[in-house]
Amino acid sequence: MSSSALTFVVNPVLGSVGRLQSTCRPYFWNLTSGELLKSVLNMDFATLNALDYDDFVNIFGNVVEKCPIITAAVWSKRPFAGLADLEAAIHEFIDALPESGKEGILRCHPDLAGRELQSGTLTQESREEQARAGLDALNSAEVSRMTRLNLDYKARFGFPFVICARMNDKATILRQLSERVQNERQVERARGIEEVKRICHLRLQGLVLTDVPNKL
Amino acid sequence: MSSSALTFVVNPVLGSVGRLQSTCRPYFWNLTSGELLKSVLNMDFATLNALDYDDFVNIFGNVVEKCPIITAAVWSKRPFAGLADLEAAIHEFIDALPESGKEGILRCHPDLAGRELQSGTLTQESREEQARAGLDALNSAEVSRMTRLNLDYKARFGFPFVICARMNDKATILRQLSERVQNERQVERARGIEEVKRICHLRLQGLVLTDVPNKL
Repeated sequence: MSSSALTFVVNPVLGSVGRLQSTCRPYFWNLTSGELLKSVLNMDFATLNALDYDDFVNIFGNVVEKCPIITAAVWSKRPFAGLADLEAAIHEFIDALPESGKEGILRCHPDLAGRELQSGTLTQESREEQARAGLDALNSAEVSRMTRLNLDYKARFGFPFVICARMNDKATILRQLSERVQNERQVERARGIEEVKRICHLRLQGLVLTDVPNKL
Repeated sequence: MSSSALTFVVNPVLGSVGRLQSTCRPYFWNLTSGELLKSVLNMDFATLNALDYDDFVNIFGNVVEKCPIITAAVWSKRPFAGLADLEAAIHEFIDALPESGKEGILRCHPDLAGRELQSGTLTQESREEQARAGLDALNSAEVSRMTRLNLDYKARFGFPFVICARMNDKATILRQLSERVQNERQVERARGIEEVKRICHLRLQGLVLTDVPNKL
């Protein structure tokens, strides 16, 4: 448990709610009663729909990296029939943006195995995702290759290479990076946004987890 | 000088650039030569236009509170003829958002004299702006009144009361809050976005300051 991050949110429906972030999956429990909740959210979608915007943004604000405006905007669309409905609202917002706005989303993403990983300034979600793909344990030759490819990619497109790290490992990421850098800009912009949606999907799934271990 | 925050950015044009945040106005200097720059940006607009997106977002990413996507998006529109041109690009992005997106921007703003001020979790820009308006030195009666009015406002509109604190003091803010809470939702949404643009204007002005004191 020593590597787990403990935070809490204040939830008007459930009261003060503890949040234990272990690997990529958060668990919530009631700080007053100590009762472990299967999930703040998935246990009852009415609860999610009753969240005020502060709590909604606190919990879901980074499902698209560093773009809390998206979560904050889709709160206007509640109630949501379920997770797919919430996800569809997020996609609708993203797809309606001008091309510059989509590029803006990509530019809010960190480099893979880049400066922010090395300096410890990644968001918690990105840190865990990059670590699961093994990007925090590259050897020096791999770091050099990744750095050079990232620079080439950014110089060519003006936005960073975005890929769902949890669906890849370091070998496939390096291969994808070296292949995708040869794409046309508009193809690659669209591809990056597809990856943003995959990342968002997994982050959402992590936040509405229903299976809880018997022992914490 | 003890209350000033010192950070630095790495700028590909100017090299490593120190940034001294004192009150609301940052000053930049070259970390290698020690030379004080009148401003990284305003000294030469060609320099601003040559910034890569990383530096552009690092420097301008919070001119709209917690919405770096906006800055990251308008980078696509460079070169800018001047500050008014950059500001117009930001306005164009905001104005093209659906109403839910405008509400999303408002929801990324903190309450005035709220929990984040008390817990020290405001962004640097917001902290300084709220302090300049005297909101960090309210008496208990004023805090109670502000808290109640903020809650009323948020319950009515589903977004927080946004006002350019640097253009007001605590008395006018309390008066505006008690008056504006009676507006219709769409009037107030538009009014909030006007205030966002005022805040953005002053934050931009702070970042392109040309007058530098002789002594730091």
